[in-house]
Amino acid sequence: MKWIDGGVCAPRGFAAAGVRAGIKQQGLDVALVVADRPCTAAGVFTQNAFISPAARYSREVVRCGKPVVATFGNSGCANACTGPEGEQDLQAIVNTVKQALARHRPGLVGEVLAAQTGIIGVRLFPERMAQPIDEAVAKAGPEGWQDAARAIMTTDTRPKACAVEAQIEGRAVHIGGMAKGSGMIAPNMATMHVYLTTDIAAQAAILQPLLGDVVGRSFNTISVDGDGSTSDCVLMLANGAAGAALSEANRSALAEALNAVCERLARELVADGEGATRVIEVRVTGARTDADAALGARAIAESLLVKTAVFGGDPNWGRIAAALGRSGAEVDPYRTTIRVGDVLLFESGAPTAFDRASAEAAVRCDEVVIAVDLGLGEGASRMLSCDLSYDYVRINAEYHT
Amino acid sequence: MKWIDGGVCAPRGFAAAGVRAGIKQQGLDVALVVADRPCTAAGVFTQNAFISPAARYSREVVRCGKPVVATFGNSGCANACTGPEGEQDLQAIVNTVKQALARHRPGLVGEVLAAQTGIIGVRLFPERMAQPIDEAVAKAGPEGWQDAARAIMTTDTRPKACAVEAQIEGRAVHIGGMAKGSGMIAPNMATMHVYLTTDIAAQAAILQPLLGDVVGRSFNTISVDGDGSTSDCVLMLANGAAGAALSEANRSALAEALNAVCERLARELVADGEGATRVIEVRVTGARTDADAALGARAIAESLLVKTAVFGGDPNWGRIAAALGRSGAEVDPYRTTIRVGDVLLFESGAPTAFDRASAEAAVRCDEVVIAVDLGLGEGASRMLSCDLSYDYVRINAEYHT
Repeated sequence: MKWIDGGVCAPRGFAAAGVRAGIKQQGLDVALVVADRPCTAAGVFTQNAFISPAARYSREVVRCGKPVVATFGNSGCANACTGPEGEQDLQAIVNTVKQALARHRPGLVGEVLAAQTGIIGVRLFPERMAQPIDEAVAKAGPEGWQDAARAIMTTDTRPKACAVEAQIEGRAVHIGGMAKGSGMIAPNMATMHVYLTTDIAAQAAILQPLLGDVVGRSFNTISVDGDGSTSDCVLMLANGAAGAALSEANRSALAEALNAVCERLARELVADGEGATRVIEVRVTGARTDADAALGARAIAESLLVKTAVFGGDPNWGRIAAALGRSGAEVDPYRTTIRVGDVLLFESGAPTAFDRASAEAAVRCDEVVIAVDLGLGEGASRMLSCDLSYDYVRINAEYHT
Repeated sequence: MKWIDGGVCAPRGFAAAGVRAGIKQQGLDVALVVADRPCTAAGVFTQNAFISPAARYSREVVRCGKPVVATFGNSGCANACTGPEGEQDLQAIVNTVKQALARHRPGLVGEVLAAQTGIIGVRLFPERMAQPIDEAVAKAGPEGWQDAARAIMTTDTRPKACAVEAQIEGRAVHIGGMAKGSGMIAPNMATMHVYLTTDIAAQAAILQPLLGDVVGRSFNTISVDGDGSTSDCVLMLANGAAGAALSEANRSALAEALNAVCERLARELVADGEGATRVIEVRVTGARTDADAALGARAIAESLLVKTAVFGGDPNWGRIAAALGRSGAEVDPYRTTIRVGDVLLFESGAPTAFDRASAEAAVRCDEVVIAVDLGLGEGASRMLSCDLSYDYVRINAEYHT
């Protein structure tokens, strides 16, 4: 497996475009990914009760197993909480994309997935979208992956795209991806949109659970602020152009490649978290169960006191202990160890005589590792987060509806 | 029932003092409350697995139902996560208080409750405490309630104390209280210490469940940052000096008075939350169950995006909807209404055509009320919180271990 250029266009047969529709005040805001043939689609969607029309619609298309030929995405407007009109608007936009495909790519027939992100409660009028959608479909090409990655950004400060090549069944198989998301990031799909493409052939019955597994290990273990949004999704298209097919036998090879792409995009999401200056990786081991480990990891990763301590460069193990102790996980203080980086800060129920300079160095780096061992069993979990800075408050207090 | 002066010294027979032991860099840091006779004690304690020696010890004294004559409190050092030495240090401090009581108040025999707050993982050496404890016991008097309220402060910006007088069984009964807490505030006892006194006579079997109920409705419905600490407790002493006794018949009258004191102290805690500029009261009604309502209220009250929007003075109902939608409560968007103050922002699955100026005015006041009705049943809950400002980040990032 090796890293390659090309993002969502790295797999054979995928084209992309990013254009400006004027939804955001500036910059590209409509992203299109078009396949060369009908694809198997898989997806993971927000669990928010206020699920947006686009996420609900795409979830339904994936659930029905219909072949998909393109994904439409826009930033600047989530079209969520917009009532029955919002559902109709989304449907009109999807139809507009299908009509543009019929004009510019005759013979390419299938469903269109949609993802919309941005402000909640504001409608996106379909008539404003006809021209930019036509432009995007006409323009989509193998070079469009960078524009597309830019067009899905909201408060992100940089586009996020990557791709890998793996050898499966003697063929070069590719997986490409792009992601957006910066605030409202929490497990179970937050304000985060991820588009994945691959040129392996795949049945939905194998691809969907595979995607679910990988998302569980990557995007569902990140948190910027513990908030989850109404419109988040991971969409994946598989067109089969590589000449290899996904099977139970080669599932683990594809999973490894897919995991590499998702893990990298997940890490880029937290690194670009609103106001983030440091990535925090929390590893909990030795828990009675994996579920206990996950409780502990999440409580630490989302603790405002831990996040502000990391921002301040302070190896404040007491706040880590306090968050762990209230997490609901089974914890015995006298069996618990707490490390930051390689530095053991706490064991046997009390702080160690750790070297202050080493501990500060471990917390003043770009990727801070907080490792907790509970000494009770084999349960383990991991969570990616980021620190909490003045800029998080500035970005979210100055943002106005 | 009427509000009166005197804090914990308002009930007959209670004396208090606040002195300086030099634990904090400046100011009073040891608080003593002394009764004129052995009291019934009740208490509610942190559920954190890293429970501090003082909280664990006081919990045990209350559980055993032993008569209590005094409470000892200090700020600047929580003596938590300090291993077996920390347990021994706490025991030595309690013994020092008992010896000082024997010297200055001969004949007053009983247990001493303790509460310690401040930095975690640092020991408080008992030998440093002998002189200030002696001074506090010698000095304790009816005027000491203000000094005592100051001596328990950590990052609090002002002392918090109040008292009420109620008529029960034809007698004037008093309840007094003082509280500290500013950060690490969440339901289930956070970095929050509350001391309550009353001159009603009470059996522990009635007083303890009554205190539990009232704490559940007041202190356990506040949140500053969702973090819960290792050392938090509500302690209550009842000395019987008023000549009236608590019974099942007059329980509701005392509950009303106790609730008034706790509610006011709870509101003062969030108003003085670290960096807080506004109190947020979240009311959820119409839920399928009370538990569902509590899930929704807590998700909204602790949402960083809601808290930063309130700091920014923005009536961002979309963030309220997103937090509610991910809360786990049963929610039907088309039956949900969202109000800020009196202004209806959301109904029938979409935002209303609300008046912008009125909505902004409702969110730009000292106490912001967010009212959500789920339209599904009779379940209701309430949560007090505060906004998230630059100062929260400053206080917690600049604080160093």
